[in-house]
Amino acid sequence: MKRLNKVILGAACAIAVTGCCGKEEHPMLIETEIPERAEGQTDMLGFAAEPIDTVRVGFIGLGMRGSDAVERFTYIPATKIVAICDIDSAKVENTQQMLDNHGIERAAGYYGSEDAWKQLTERDDIDLVYIATDWNNHAPMGKYAMEQGKHAAIEVPAATSLDEIWDLVNTSEQTRKHCMMLENCVYDFFELNTLNMAQQGLFGEILHTEGSYIHNLEDYWDEYWNNWRMDFNQSHRGDIYPTHGFGPACQLLDIHRGDRITTLVAMDTKAVTGPEIIRKTTGNYPGTFENGDHTTTIMRTENGKTIQLQHDVMNPRPYSRMYQLTGTKGFANKYGRQGYAFAPEQLDSTMVPDYADVSPHSWLSDDQKEALTAHFTHPIITEVGEVAKKVGGHGGMDYIMDYRLIYCLRNGLPLDMDVYDLAEWCAAGPLGAISINNGSAPVAFPDFTRGGWDKTHGYRHAYKKP
Amino acid sequence: MKRLNKVILGAACAIAVTGCCGKEEHPMLIETEIPERAEGQTDMLGFAAEPIDTVRVGFIGLGMRGSDAVERFTYIPATKIVAICDIDSAKVENTQQMLDNHGIERAAGYYGSEDAWKQLTERDDIDLVYIATDWNNHAPMGKYAMEQGKHAAIEVPAATSLDEIWDLVNTSEQTRKHCMMLENCVYDFFELNTLNMAQQGLFGEILHTEGSYIHNLEDYWDEYWNNWRMDFNQSHRGDIYPTHGFGPACQLLDIHRGDRITTLVAMDTKAVTGPEIIRKTTGNYPGTFENGDHTTTIMRTENGKTIQLQHDVMNPRPYSRMYQLTGTKGFANKYGRQGYAFAPEQLDSTMVPDYADVSPHSWLSDDQKEALTAHFTHPIITEVGEVAKKVGGHGGMDYIMDYRLIYCLRNGLPLDMDVYDLAEWCAAGPLGAISINNGSAPVAFPDFTRGGWDKTHGYRHAYKKP
Repeated sequence: MKRLNKVILGAACAIAVTGCCGKEEHPMLIETEIPERAEGQTDMLGFAAEPIDTVRVGFIGLGMRGSDAVERFTYIPATKIVAICDIDSAKVENTQQMLDNHGIERAAGYYGSEDAWKQLTERDDIDLVYIATDWNNHAPMGKYAMEQGKHAAIEVPAATSLDEIWDLVNTSEQTRKHCMMLENCVYDFFELNTLNMAQQGLFGEILHTEGSYIHNLEDYWDEYWNNWRMDFNQSHRGDIYPTHGFGPACQLLDIHRGDRITTLVAMDTKAVTGPEIIRKTTGNYPGTFENGDHTTTIMRTENGKTIQLQHDVMNPRPYSRMYQLTGTKGFANKYGRQGYAFAPEQLDSTMVPDYADVSPHSWLSDDQKEALTAHFTHPIITEVGEVAKKVGGHGGMDYIMDYRLIYCLRNGLPLDMDVYDLAEWCAAGPLGAISINNGSAPVAFPDFTRGGWDKTHGYRHAYKKP
Repeated sequence: MKRLNKVILGAACAIAVTGCCGKEEHPMLIETEIPERAEGQTDMLGFAAEPIDTVRVGFIGLGMRGSDAVERFTYIPATKIVAICDIDSAKVENTQQMLDNHGIERAAGYYGSEDAWKQLTERDDIDLVYIATDWNNHAPMGKYAMEQGKHAAIEVPAATSLDEIWDLVNTSEQTRKHCMMLENCVYDFFELNTLNMAQQGLFGEILHTEGSYIHNLEDYWDEYWNNWRMDFNQSHRGDIYPTHGFGPACQLLDIHRGDRITTLVAMDTKAVTGPEIIRKTTGNYPGTFENGDHTTTIMRTENGKTIQLQHDVMNPRPYSRMYQLTGTKGFANKYGRQGYAFAPEQLDSTMVPDYADVSPHSWLSDDQKEALTAHFTHPIITEVGEVAKKVGGHGGMDYIMDYRLIYCLRNGLPLDMDVYDLAEWCAAGPLGAISINNGSAPVAFPDFTRGGWDKTHGYRHAYKKP
């Protein structure tokens, strides 16, 4: 049964709704269109490109995130900063001076027009286009880069609507180019070490994960070019910045590596602080303001796990990406109180001091946490953790992200995050908007692999053969 | 448009569903029946009974909670422990000996039959029946007590289905007797002091609240008479023990004192640890096990606020009732890390030391938290906090609950929690089950006041005139 006339799509999604109230088992599920894969087109699961000896990079967007990225690349061996682009010529010049300071040859500079980035992307001496512009330009630039034969690395969120997401998936599948989202938080130290514990079975079966983006942006709003970030908040409902919380949660649950998200529901508060900021800046309250101050999104997987996300960039709160997991044998939490709890049989006295004190009701002591972290340090942290802390970038995780991207490209390995990770992690936004605009109705979470989610079992990083 | 055939009610609710997919603004909302109020019957909002000089109490259920309650009452002036009842005669005798030890006259004892409690309730020398049995008996006993002309105080959850909830609401309205749920957690120290801050406007407008019951019960399962608690988990989906988290959240949001909950959505994980406990105990996995290991419930109010609840009694985690609030000017969190954050303009140097360090991004320091708590100590804590800590009962909150119940009855005041609080806080369970059984569809949250939710503005405790 089709009830298309009753479903409100709003600004977040222009894609067709193909059914709701349609199935006996989910009488009230809203389903969105899953475009058919073209004849001859195949998935990118496990895709690896030919190894690249020196990775030649072009950067688009030299604002808050992009200029830092270029500087980090000066520390990554076997890369060449070929070209840089920003609409603002001053940003290009600042970045050139940074290269001077590092004693590195200036890059080709592009600036001054809305289309300058296309010229960069069309160069024939670039392997990878690294995109750190405003959100609205992410997906079109990534698509164009792949069409020009380049791998694409795109800042978060790489896409903001279901149309953009499917466009990136199809373009990557058609061009056989990597399309990786630059989700840095999966590389933070606690997240990586905890993922390692999870993959060794320390938490038993992980049943529930949480992530969030709780970050009061009041000191930042006037730093975004042309006010794009507040404009985006004003015009979009749902969790519009989900990937920092969602990415680590999905890696813990092996999403599209043996499990898949089936259903999403979202709910938000009214918008109070956003409109108030606009009133303070402009003197008037805006006519409309879509994004609620606090948005909650909950999802369920095929294998009966749940994921919870929260978004609040408006109100006074300590920064939090939550990062919490509940397993049948253990528990981890990063923000507020960072720590672990375990069923005692999961640990032994070689892993933690005072083993007799381990209780399913209690946090491990600080000493126990430290010892356990040392015992289960993720191999990537062991390899580059110290360098990463020195180079910096959100405490090192940005460097690890760039390092891994280049490591995998140089060694012809699948990247740590594929285009389906990008699709899933970005989809929470537009799917959540559909849910909220329809009274928090459940929305079917598309299988962006189009049938391949169960091909491999367990998320793993790739390493070159020793 | 009616789609009754598509809505799955499950064990949690036998009430009729009156509509879904029915309204333009909420095309997929499931609505449950709201029984019409009988001719001449009026609401209990602000209800106060005649003052009672000495409150004569009969206790039903002397297990884990009830025996402690009787002992606490030996410390409360102007009360008389008239009668006690338990199906198990040994529990009655133990309680009598406890009274002996306190030098207090033995109470009339009832035991030995499934109906013994009725005789207690029918006595003509009791003002209040205090019920602390298994969950299944709560509502029928409370109803019978009111029908016998007694006020009823019922342990959590006071009712487990929508039928039971409406039955208690109607009986209280018809008999003009108080029906209070013994929700102790609204009286814990951090909760009361934070509520005081909230009522003074310290958090600005509170937009989002959270509560939970995260309590690994593995040490307790075999202590429940006839295995009733595990049986209940086995046969019911949804957040079956919501009130400890939900009660404090509702008080912060003035629910049915100017706002009301309109929509509820719930989602759970599969059941893993529950069935495993049964296998360990009986040798076999159960055929079915309804309650998921982890259940999440989200709700939205008429005024655009949201509430989130979580329930997990199965897996290894530190105890948590969450207790979190996000306001436009401040933030509070109890479990994990206990503390506050504020927009600086909310505080001043008379409230906290190092005022210049207050930042919307940071937790108050321990010293600041302590000073702020001293500045905003709730009047009830000031009045009985020290005595409560000495008498004990979950650190004192149980004593404060009993003290306030008796204080209000003696002074002829409205109780701190009315029958609509009971109804709302219990309803999350059966409404959540409906949502989950229908693929996390949104369910309309009934207005248990039947039109009275906006009569008063702001939740307040009642005090006798000085």
